[in-house]
Amino acid sequence: MSYETIRRKRDGEALPPDEIREFFEAFIDERVSDYQMSAFLMAVHFRGLAPPELATLVDVMIASGAVADLSAVPGIKVDKHSTGGVGDKVSLILAPLVSSLGVPVPMMSGRGLGHTGGTVDKLESIPGFRTDLTLAEYRAQMERIGCALIAQTREIAPLDRRLYALRDVTATIESIPLIASSIMSKKLAEGIDALVLDVKQGSGAFLPEFERARALAETMIDIGRSHGRDVVALVTAMDRPLGRAVGNALEVKEAFLVLRGEGPADVREVTLALAAEMLVLGGAVPDRAAAHRQAQAALVRGRALDKMREIISAQGGDARVLDDPDLLPRAPVCSDVHATDGGVIARMDVRAIGAAAVALGAGRSRLDDEILPGVGFDIRVRPGDPVDAGQAVATVFAADEEAAAHASEALLTAIRIGAEAEPLLPLVSHRITADGIETLQT
Amino acid sequence: MSYETIRRKRDGEALPPDEIREFFEAFIDERVSDYQMSAFLMAVHFRGLAPPELATLVDVMIASGAVADLSAVPGIKVDKHSTGGVGDKVSLILAPLVSSLGVPVPMMSGRGLGHTGGTVDKLESIPGFRTDLTLAEYRAQMERIGCALIAQTREIAPLDRRLYALRDVTATIESIPLIASSIMSKKLAEGIDALVLDVKQGSGAFLPEFERARALAETMIDIGRSHGRDVVALVTAMDRPLGRAVGNALEVKEAFLVLRGEGPADVREVTLALAAEMLVLGGAVPDRAAAHRQAQAALVRGRALDKMREIISAQGGDARVLDDPDLLPRAPVCSDVHATDGGVIARMDVRAIGAAAVALGAGRSRLDDEILPGVGFDIRVRPGDPVDAGQAVATVFAADEEAAAHASEALLTAIRIGAEAEPLLPLVSHRITADGIETLQT
Repeated sequence: MSYETIRRKRDGEALPPDEIREFFEAFIDERVSDYQMSAFLMAVHFRGLAPPELATLVDVMIASGAVADLSAVPGIKVDKHSTGGVGDKVSLILAPLVSSLGVPVPMMSGRGLGHTGGTVDKLESIPGFRTDLTLAEYRAQMERIGCALIAQTREIAPLDRRLYALRDVTATIESIPLIASSIMSKKLAEGIDALVLDVKQGSGAFLPEFERARALAETMIDIGRSHGRDVVALVTAMDRPLGRAVGNALEVKEAFLVLRGEGPADVREVTLALAAEMLVLGGAVPDRAAAHRQAQAALVRGRALDKMREIISAQGGDARVLDDPDLLPRAPVCSDVHATDGGVIARMDVRAIGAAAVALGAGRSRLDDEILPGVGFDIRVRPGDPVDAGQAVATVFAADEEAAAHASEALLTAIRIGAEAEPLLPLVSHRITADGIETLQT
Repeated sequence: MSYETIRRKRDGEALPPDEIREFFEAFIDERVSDYQMSAFLMAVHFRGLAPPELATLVDVMIASGAVADLSAVPGIKVDKHSTGGVGDKVSLILAPLVSSLGVPVPMMSGRGLGHTGGTVDKLESIPGFRTDLTLAEYRAQMERIGCALIAQTREIAPLDRRLYALRDVTATIESIPLIASSIMSKKLAEGIDALVLDVKQGSGAFLPEFERARALAETMIDIGRSHGRDVVALVTAMDRPLGRAVGNALEVKEAFLVLRGEGPADVREVTLALAAEMLVLGGAVPDRAAAHRQAQAALVRGRALDKMREIISAQGGDARVLDDPDLLPRAPVCSDVHATDGGVIARMDVRAIGAAAVALGAGRSRLDDEILPGVGFDIRVRPGDPVDAGQAVATVFAADEEAAAHASEALLTAIRIGAEAEPLLPLVSHRITADGIETLQT
């Protein structure tokens, strides 16, 4: 029977929902082996999964573990998911911002792996901050303050964890239906009513090509629809890092600046665009323009900052970091990186910058790598900026001089200086909903 | 490293021979897991293997086990491989026939699985016949009488056995490069200098479509060339059973008839065509026409029969069966199958006939099924034959009345009677060599 399921997928036949369900449930019960599943997943890589197959797979993934029941939390619960980027600290601002305006935000995040960071690692650079709440603590905090920022618990979608571990060693990570089902099963299990996606495109994105990023967004929107949840996606630029800071504590510090109405414009702009979508989905504001204005006001007036204070305290963190960022961990070595040539910043190799940050200890290349919370980069230039030879273009924060020297060299290679700047992607280029795709004017 | 090998194959990149070697050797050493290999095999299903990849895989498969050294056997050793068909008893005639004309035939065969029978199962219906010779006994017999008919020993190409077991449960059986490497590694390890392939086409064949059968032949010819061995393929018809007899002892009996210059014309014709190729490859006769005549004479004059006597005796069998086929096992129940309608035999569903024979106990649907040597069919009609309602079209040999009734019913469904016969494939339609393909006039 399992043989026939693999064969039919291999041959591109449509599998009835019952057959998909039976196959994955048999995998849970270990009646389908790892080697049969990995052959099936590779066949999925080539053949894809049709919407009914995908909806059923997501169902089985959700049912394989615990589901957070947030029905006692009033309001429409809205979360955000990003496909991941370098310097992407948006969640740290967005969650307090949106929940400060009355929309509950239940946010479960992952840890960083590969060239992009993870929200949980960033949060853990805040002294005392606990990301390992139990499902009961999570639910209680959602009821009490309308927002929680926690790590995915092992109780959620264990089938996804097993499948991911298998995909990770069998070269089936990049399959769009498998990515989409993995993300959506966890989001649906955490108790959301609606979801906003930040789908990155550009050289530093998980799926650099626009068409693949778009297909991933559409697949997740489809899964949302099959489960009665509205999903809206914004396509945002990852052909340069987001903001100046790359590295956990450095990004937290930058997020705090944005929470005060300061900080880099690009971080603020992406955050406000996503916040507007969440506020409309959450029913707090009728239209996006009004939502955008309200969100901006909440930053300027300190409402979002107050909410962050409440969240940090609720999760055991030292909320004084909001007023005194020097309480955040800091790397012992700090040195400026100087441009060797003059000209203009032609482009940035975002993947290389991410990899250099991982090499410093800001991220993981293996699951059991330890994170150094204080290390990373403060990148002071953006593509298009003029530079002089010898000008300080960035600062490296490192564990030791040797690591700093390596990182400086890597950064100088990644920041390409030339005669003119290459064109940049629009910061927020497209909006994708169940009704279709629209190009935005930014 | 293994991840990258799977990914590159998935993405259709050419893998250098060293990488293929390293990957499969790591699988032998269990540094590459079953689930990684099954993902790789599924990627091969979609992407294929280029000739240099295939040549290296075959090398690693051969080197994974023992190689029979037949250098002490004078002459060019030639074997035949068939892709398998219903009623295909050709090996039982061909091996003694060709070796009786001075070309050594080292023949290692498999057991039946699925709807087609296996030569080893057929041989084992001869009382006392040993197919489990050791490699030393095999070599000694080849030196002494120039022919041995044995089962593949576990010492030969153990990597192939592991891969086959994995393919068998992960729907990667039908991949042409994997089929070709499996067959060729075993044939090369048994000590052959040249090989003739009987590639079946038609509804009862393992690969029914001509183009796939042709691709398999060409792939095996390529592997042969990369290992310095001539390989010639004949494409023969499997849109009807070969001969009348289907089932082990029944087929042995029919093979003995052909060895006496009698028996069904189609069995004789396919055997002689293959024998002519083997005799030319073996250097015994300069051209195929002459080889065909000599082979025919060897049947008519009893030379092949004498050789079979020698082989049976050498392998512990009771050679009196050649003169008294009643010494072969016979099923207890035997009953005629009568046509329900009159008309003409329109076509035969060969796969269904094979499956009905397996259901009787003539073959295996699982590896550990037991074979009943005496059961099977004697099919008295051929496509195109006129039949009257009530006419006996076949005889069923079964273990009991119930099995006989089921088999009769299955056979009547499989033998389609209509107003006119559908066109048949030519019995021997094409000849494929390293130089190309030619259409034959039969």
